[in-house]
Order: sequence, then structure tokens, then C-alpha cells
Amino acid sequence: MSAPDVQAPAPAPALIPTLGGRYYTDPDIFVSEQENVFEAMWFCAARTADLADAGAFKKVTVGRESVLVVRGRDGALRAFLNICRHRGAMLCTEDEGQVRRNLQCPYHAWTYGLDGKLVAAPNMAALRDETGADIDRVRYGLVPVALREWLGYAWVCLADEPPSFEDEVIGSVTERLGDPAAIDRYEIGTLELGRRITYDVAANWKLIIENFMECYHCATIHPELTEVLPEFADGLAAQYFVGHGAAFGDEVEGFTIDGSGGFEALSGISDDQDRKYYAITVRPQVFVNLVPDHVIFHRMYPMSADRTIVECDWLYAPDVTASGRDVSRSVELFHRVNEQDFDACERTQPTMSSKAYRDGGVLVPAEHHIGEFHDWLLTRLGGDAK
Amino acid sequence: MSAPDVQAPAPAPALIPTLGGRYYTDPDIFVSEQENVFEAMWFCAARTADLADAGAFKKVTVGRESVLVVRGRDGALRAFLNICRHRGAMLCTEDEGQVRRNLQCPYHAWTYGLDGKLVAAPNMAALRDETGADIDRVRYGLVPVALREWLGYAWVCLADEPPSFEDEVIGSVTERLGDPAAIDRYEIGTLELGRRITYDVAANWKLIIENFMECYHCATIHPELTEVLPEFADGLAAQYFVGHGAAFGDEVEGFTIDGSGGFEALSGISDDQDRKYYAITVRPQVFVNLVPDHVIFHRMYPMSADRTIVECDWLYAPDVTASGRDVSRSVELFHRVNEQDFDACERTQPTMSSKAYRDGGVLVPAEHHIGEFHDWLLTRLGGDAK
Amino acid sequence: MSAPDVQAPAPAPALIPTLGGRYYTDPDIFVSEQENVFEAMWFCAARTADLADAGAFKKVTVGRESVLVVRGRDGALRAFLNICRHRGAMLCTEDEGQVRRNLQCPYHAWTYGLDGKLVAAPNMAALRDETGADIDRVRYGLVPVALREWLGYAWVCLADEPPSFEDEVIGSVTERLGDPAAIDRYEIGTLELGRRITYDVAANWKLIIENFMECYHCATIHPELTEVLPEFADGLAAQYFVGHGAAFGDEVEGFTIDGSGGFEALSGISDDQDRKYYAITVRPQVFVNLVPDHVIFHRMYPMSADRTIVECDWLYAPDVTASGRDVSRSVELFHRVNEQDFDACERTQPTMSSKAYRDGGVLVPAEHHIGEFHDWLLTRLGGDAK
Repeated sequence: MSAPDVQAPAPAPALIPTLGGRYYTDPDIFVSEQENVFEAMWFCAARTADLADAGAFKKVTVGRESVLVVRGRDGALRAFLNICRHRGAMLCTEDEGQVRRNLQCPYHAWTYGLDGKLVAAPNMAALRDETGADIDRVRYGLVPVALREWLGYAWVCLADEPPSFEDEVIGSVTERLGDPAAIDRYEIGTLELGRRITYDVAANWKLIIENFMECYHCATIHPELTEVLPEFADGLAAQYFVGHGAAFGDEVEGFTIDGSGGFEALSGISDDQDRKYYAITVRPQVFVNLVPDHVIFHRMYPMSADRTIVECDWLYAPDVTASGRDVSRSVELFHRVNEQDFDACERTQPTMSSKAYRDGGVLVPAEHHIGEFHDWLLTRLGGDAK
Repeated sequence: MSAPDVQAPAPAPALIPTLGGRYYTDPDIFVSEQENVFEAMWFCAARTADLADAGAFKKVTVGRESVLVVRGRDGALRAFLNICRHRGAMLCTEDEGQVRRNLQCPYHAWTYGLDGKLVAAPNMAALRDETGADIDRVRYGLVPVALREWLGYAWVCLADEPPSFEDEVIGSVTERLGDPAAIDRYEIGTLELGRRITYDVAANWKLIIENFMECYHCATIHPELTEVLPEFADGLAAQYFVGHGAAFGDEVEGFTIDGSGGFEALSGISDDQDRKYYAITVRPQVFVNLVPDHVIFHRMYPMSADRTIVECDWLYAPDVTASGRDVSRSVELFHRVNEQDFDACERTQPTMSSKAYRDGGVLVPAEHHIGEFHDWLLTRLGGDAK
Repeated sequence: MSAPDVQAPAPAPALIPTLGGRYYTDPDIFVSEQENVFEAMWFCAARTADLADAGAFKKVTVGRESVLVVRGRDGALRAFLNICRHRGAMLCTEDEGQVRRNLQCPYHAWTYGLDGKLVAAPNMAALRDETGADIDRVRYGLVPVALREWLGYAWVCLADEPPSFEDEVIGSVTERLGDPAAIDRYEIGTLELGRRITYDVAANWKLIIENFMECYHCATIHPELTEVLPEFADGLAAQYFVGHGAAFGDEVEGFTIDGSGGFEALSGISDDQDRKYYAITVRPQVFVNLVPDHVIFHRMYPMSADRTIVECDWLYAPDVTASGRDVSRSVELFHRVNEQDFDACERTQPTMSSKAYRDGGVLVPAEHHIGEFHDWLLTRLGGDAK
């Protein structure tokens, strides 16, 4: 049962090149990525359930900007740049919190509604704009940031004209799973948080993506994962294929650190999805793993050319979290995988500056799809040569 | 009694722009400021009373230079670059200290008089300059830095041709107070140090100046100060006006944390100066507050685009310090103001890089005089556009 | 007996200029030095006795590269860039260690023989190069680095075409000692390590070289050394001359912290070499001190424009180390000298950015040979003006 269950084309056997080392170290390239990738695309910013009540807010770094995600009194989630329009003070300095009715700048008390409009300022009645008119509560309101909710997360986009969420985000999941209905069956938006772990990784964000995309390393660094998913020993990642789920080993009862039984399968999934592991990369910064009884949801926050914060949520059916059942055996499996992967990324970062990596390394056949990621990145950056 | 006691022109009501965010973050602009502001103007370097005895020295960072202020055996204060003329070792590495007769470089023992002349070096008799002459004790002496004493402080200037101290320093105080005699009545040079507090502020020096110049924030962040000076609740800073002192509240007995009585008024001040608070900015790095019974004297030491050290002295009449009377209630008032202000500056610094602040924010009418500071800075930097 | 025992030409008495301050602070100049000096010349990387057994390895930073020095199963020492040819992971992250038969990348298990050849990789049989041929085990093997052994140390060179080891390394020792046989008499390769001390110095590597080259500072900062070698009080370093050894003071019994007796003189040295101290600089990063009963061997590892790691070995005759005799009195002497010197370098670094050092300082006659070092450096960097 360890063979892929869909037919893949035979991989071309030749080694193909990677990006050159400077793509992982050059601060100027990182700035270009912030501009052309993280500030231009949909960016998964926060879990909506963390912002349940009106006035709840969360502060998130997106590219070079501090963004506030806020629950309005009308129940809607909105996002704004976290900066006062008066003299530029940061509106909220706490990572998250709760206000009553307004967002008030603690410097000069300019006050904004939860919808972003300027509602008050000292001596506001006397203020005039450059034409002599009363100041406009929207023009001097908080700078809005586009926001969409999907899979229980708030995705934001700093672009003036955001790309299609359907094409870029939902489309990329469909493309991986091969069926638009496949992701819906997990009803991710109804799941609840069982555990969250945050990792501070001393590596470029692309090393983390590349690592997540391939399984040529699985046999070497992931003994526990390979035990549960025996086909991974062959080195082909689930996402090498379209619609492929890696099958659990015959003796494996659940996706846990020791292969012991997990929880009941999520009620909506198909028979075909049971006892399978799916992995999806939503560019530029989200990884999703689907297993029958839970979902693992990673978001990367690139901080500099050589540092990336990764936040990982383990999501379970509400009755599992409500009953207080012990999730630690399933958390432990992918937490260990994360640590093994991030260790590998951290040992790769320092050598990216070597003259031996000036033109990069090589991708073996099982990694060839990473080459497509590199091509995509170069196109976004406007580069025409590696 | 809370209304301004001089007639100010009605402020224009329109919002006007500030400097763009890069002026607060760009290391190249900071270097230009070091060159064209801190190394070109008079810089308040040290309190002269800290250097009472011959041989006392203090090491101060002025722009990009380490400067030594030294008391000579003739009683005069002098300033020199803190670097040996031989191989460039730092002469004094301690922040302050006391030598007997000379400043000797601890590397090769080149030795300088307290007047900066080279007085000895190993094998000095055999040394020749490039013309074959004996080496010149002045040419190879310490590099002198211009120094003036005023208000009990040593002001230094690194420029080859220092600007007029009378015009730039004394003139700016006169311009603020509206009367050349006003500052003299406080006899600041005769006061003694009651307390010194040093603040390490994670903000650009201009945010600190701008904060000090306006009082639109007073009602929001300075409850104690506004209690003592009720007109500050209206948002107009004392230095918005010429010659204006903010009056103490009717119930207020002194400039203390709880409005309780302070000390006797300084003997020289006029009736008009009693029960008043004056604030002066001496560009680029000194703030002075005058109250009837003490003087608060701030110096800023800009360290990088996003870090500034502020040293603040509380000065009292000699009989107050000699008698050991408790100064803590008056110190506590402005110390709390400082902490409130520097917190505000620190929460403003991180957002200066936001795209929402690329062209800056806005100044309300009560802050319009900050616009003049920005124009002045741009002129000094040789920039012609914000 | 404190006068030099060879006739030196009278030094020209004029002061001559040093390098300008930016040579000690500019990160771009440091990068140029890494490229044109440390990655272009022979670099002393490791003590061969530290790598006695097959499979022993040591990781060393040479310029901007991480280099592995490895003992092969055939007994030969080899050096390689410490980077896997597949996706660029650092092969060995530990500073030193021991493998059995191979160097295996812990990321994807590409495996290299101790001779650098690629010996295994997952699915290796299926891998093809861009021509469709089997992958070449040498082409995809570790990148070799030139290595020579001399004086018991492994010297490596990152240049594609290394310069002549005989001319550059051995030649520079001969030039200093005036006799090719002089260094051989110490039989340094047979000595054993008595003590190793590592210093982390906050100074540019050239300040350390310049300090080591001259003795004009000896009387000021090295009281213990000057006690043992009285002629150093006159300020002329041993290496000011060709073939000159500084004689021990008449009352001095050995090269120890208190002048008390050391060990038996090394068996091979000449009578002329007894009771003498010789100092050699092997550009760019090795200093050797020869005394009758031990050898002190320094290697510098420049980390940035203002930080240098110095590793210092004290080497003794095998019977001294085998017998467990106490080496602390001889270690203490030069350890103290090192600390005194590095303190001086660290107090010189911060002032290199002063405007007073823009064009540098001056060299007194006893330091004129440092000017030759500066000229040499400028030639290597391709600069034509100071």
C-alpha cells in the first residue's frame, strides 16, 4: 500500500538548477519580495475565531506593514494599517486585545470607529482641510486593507487592487487537490484550535517552502512521519502529484506520533480521504495538511532575509476540543516534523553565501516541482535570469 | 487664569503636512544630520560644575566624534577630539575621570598637556616632521574643538568655523522668551544639580523635539502636568507663543507631582515669572524648562536614526541642595512627563516606515510651529522638497 | 646586553603616514580584503595534531567560506568547502568531530567519501546530468580546497590557482629570520600543545598585525615582557630587523612571567638561538614567537571590519607535555602580553572613524616597517592611493 495511488508521469531524470544563493541572503531581494510578493498577494493574517467579539483586534506584520484585524460592532472583520493618520503613532502596540467601541490613538487621542472612520479628535470641530472644508472622516480615517475570510482565517491584501481571491487562493488549493469540493469536505471553518505552536526559524522563507514541497528528505530526517506514511520513504511528496493523498501504513491506526489511534474521522470527508494525508502550499506563506481527524495549518511571517516566524495551528472537530480529549499524540507528530524541517532549513541558510552556491545547487527528479516555484518567484520579482 | 496671557494670532485652521517617514528612519539622512546639524552647530556637551578641578575630564559623543571636555590647570575648560595623534587610539575610554597633569595615551605614551599640546613621547627628541624639522607640539597636539560656557554648561562646536554663539544659541532663547534679560533672571549658572536622570529612547531625535514643541498631546498623556498647568488642557504649548509662560492652576502651590508647595522662588526672577512655566527649545538638542523654584535642563544625544539618549538635570538654588531638602516631588513631576513623552515617541518610531506615512502625517493648528522646525531642518540638510 | 646584536640601518627620523581610518571600518574594504587577501592567500586553518585519526574533521571560517579539514582513511589531510552539492546544506555544523567512513549530509543523505567524492545519494542510480549521463562522482563531489602541511599546521588556500607556498609562506619566514634553516631547528612539527587560548577581539585585524609588528608600545603596556627582554624598552621590535633575536636580560632564567627558569632548550636549536626571542609575521594572519623552550603560534580569524578571533597555541617538547610539567608560568607571560595588546587594539578601533583620522596617523621611525605592510595591502586590494 505504499505506492502512489494515482499515476504520475515518470520524472525526468536530469538534475536541474535551483536559485542562486543570493536569493536567500540579499536584503535587497528580500525587500523586493516584500513589495512584489507579501504586500501584493493575499496573506493569511489571523484565525477569525481569535477575534470573536466586537472590538477584538489582532496586530499582524504583513510585509513591511503593521496591520490591525478588528471585529466590528456589526460583526464584520476588517483590516487597517495600524497607524494614526495624524502624526503616525502606532495605534495598537499589543499583539492582540479588546477595545470597547473605538480605536483611540494614545498619543493625541484621535479616535476611530471600528469601521475605520475618524470619529473624534481634540478640537476637531475647528480643523479644516487644505480647501477650508471640514475634515473628511473617511479621508482621515484609518487606511483600509482588503480582507477575505476562508477556512476560518482572515486573509488580507495590501495591494491597491487585490488579485482575485478565488483564482489565487482557492484556485491553488483546487489545483493541488484536483477537485474543488475536496477541501470543503473537511469543513475547516468549523474546526477548533487544539494547539498553537510558534517557531522562530533562522532561515529564509523560501528554504521553508522548498522543504515543505518535497519529500526527498523524509527518509533521512523524518523517521516518525515515514513510519506512519511508508510511501514517503520513496521520496515523492504528496504534493508532487495532483489529488494524491499519501496512504497510512497498514499497521497504522492514526496520524499520531506512535501510529496509535486518533479521533473519529471528520464527518464530511469521503471514504477516499480517510486514512490519507494531503499537503497543500498556498503561496506565498500558507501550508495546510489534511488528515482524517484533524487539520494542520501553518502561516509563515518572513521577518528578514534570514529569519521567518512560523505559526502552526492544530485544528480538531469541536466535540474533540470540547470534551478535553488529549490531542498531544497527534500534535507531537507534526511538531516533531516541524522541528526536524526547521533544523534542516537553519543548517542550510548559513551556506547560501558560499561561492559553491553562487549559481545554486541541483534539484533531483523528486524535487523538480520546486523549479516551478522558482520560476514563479522570478516572474513576480520581474527577474528574467537566475 | 488658565487663558494665555499674551495675545496670539488665531491659528490657521488647515492641516499642514509633516516630514515624510523616511526622515525618521533613513540612515543616510541621519548621517547628513550628523554632518549638517550636530557637527555643524553648537552642541551642549557637559555641565561645567561636573568638571570643577584641574584635570577633570568628561567624554561626550558629538555627532560621530568622541569629544573630551577638560578643565585646565589655568582653570579654563577646553575641548578636544578624544584621539591620539600618533596611531589613533582613544585617549580616554572612561566616561569621566580625573588626571593629574597630562593626558597620556595608554598605547604608546604620547603625552599631551591639558591645553592639548604634545609634551612628551618616547624618543621624541629624535622625531622629525616631513621637512626634517623637530615635530611641532601644536600641530601634533590634540585637535581642538570650539567651546563656550553658558548657563553652567559647556557648549562645543565641531565646525571649522563655528557660527555665532550669540546669534544661534543665546538668540534663540531670547526669541522664545521675547526679552534678552528674561533668562538671566534665573541665574542658571549659579544653580546646583539636584537630580540627573538619563533616558535611552528608541526613537529618532526629531520625534522628541516635535513632542517637546507641542501640547496637543498634553490632555491625553500628561494628567499630572495638566493638573498643575490647566491651560495645557487646551492644547497650546507655552512655546507656541513668544514670551508666554503657562500659569499655575489657582489651587496649585508649586511645580510638583501633586501641586504641593515647592521651594522659595529663585531670588532674581520677576513677579511676572513667578507661578509660571516657560519652555525653550535650543536647536538642535537642548530643552529648558523654567519654573519659579527650579530649572529643568535636557540634552539629547542622537545615537542612530532610531535611538536617542536624553540626559535631564534638575537644578536648584544652592541653599536647597546644600540643606539636603527633598527634591523628589518636583523631580517626579517632570520625570513622569518625560516617561510619558518618550513612550509616545517610541510608539511612533516603528510606524514611520509605513506606506501610510510615506508623505508624512498632518499638523493641526496647535502644532503649526513644528512645520517651521521642519523647514529649518530641510534648509540645513540642503533638501528642497519634503 | 640589551642592545641589538646585529647592526641595523639608522631609521629615517621622519614621521610617515598610516592608512586612513576607513581601512579599519569600511565593510566594503573588509569584503575586498576577504576576497583579495584571506580567500586568495595561504591561510593557516588548523593544527594537524587535532586531526589525528581517520574521519576527524574541523570546521574553519576562511574569508567568507566555511571550510572542512578532514583526515582521510589513507592518512592524508584534505580540505573541502563545507557545503552539500545538492541543495547547499552545511555538511558539518559542529566545530569539530569524528565520522566513521563518510561525510553524510543530514538533510537528504547525499554521502561523500573522506576524499570528497560523492559515494551515495537516495535514488542515485536514477540521477542523470544534463547530458543524460550518470552523474559524475567528482563533479558532484565536495569542492576541494588546496591544503599544505607545515610546522604542524594545515594551511589552506581558496584561490583557484594558489600562489607558491614555498615563496609566500616559507619564504616570508626565511626573509624574517635571514636563514632558511633557522625555523627548522625548532622542529615545530614535533612539538605538542601545552595550552590553547582563544581571544575575541573587537578590532580590525590590521590593528592586531600592526601591534604585533612594533615594539614602540612595549615600555608602556608590557612591563613583564620588557623585564624579560630589556632591549624592548628601547622600542625596536625584534622583527624590525632581519634575523634578530631579542636577548633575555642577564638576570632572566627563562621566558616566564617572573623570569624564572623554563624547560630545557629545544634540542635542535643553535647556541645563537638560545636565550633569544624571535617574532615572525606570516601574512596575512599568523604570528610565531620562538623562544628556547617553546613556540607560541597565533592565527587570526577576521570576522568583520571590527572583530577578529585570535587562537593562540603554546607548543612544547613532547617530554614536557607528557610529563605533565606545569607550563603555566610560560603561558602566563605571553597570555598577559596578548591581553595587553588586544586591549590596546580595542581602544583604537572606535576612533578609526574620527575625522581626525580620515587621513590616518603617523608612524615613528621604530614603526616604519608597518608602512611596508600598508603598501603591500594596498597593492593586494588594487588601490593606488591611501
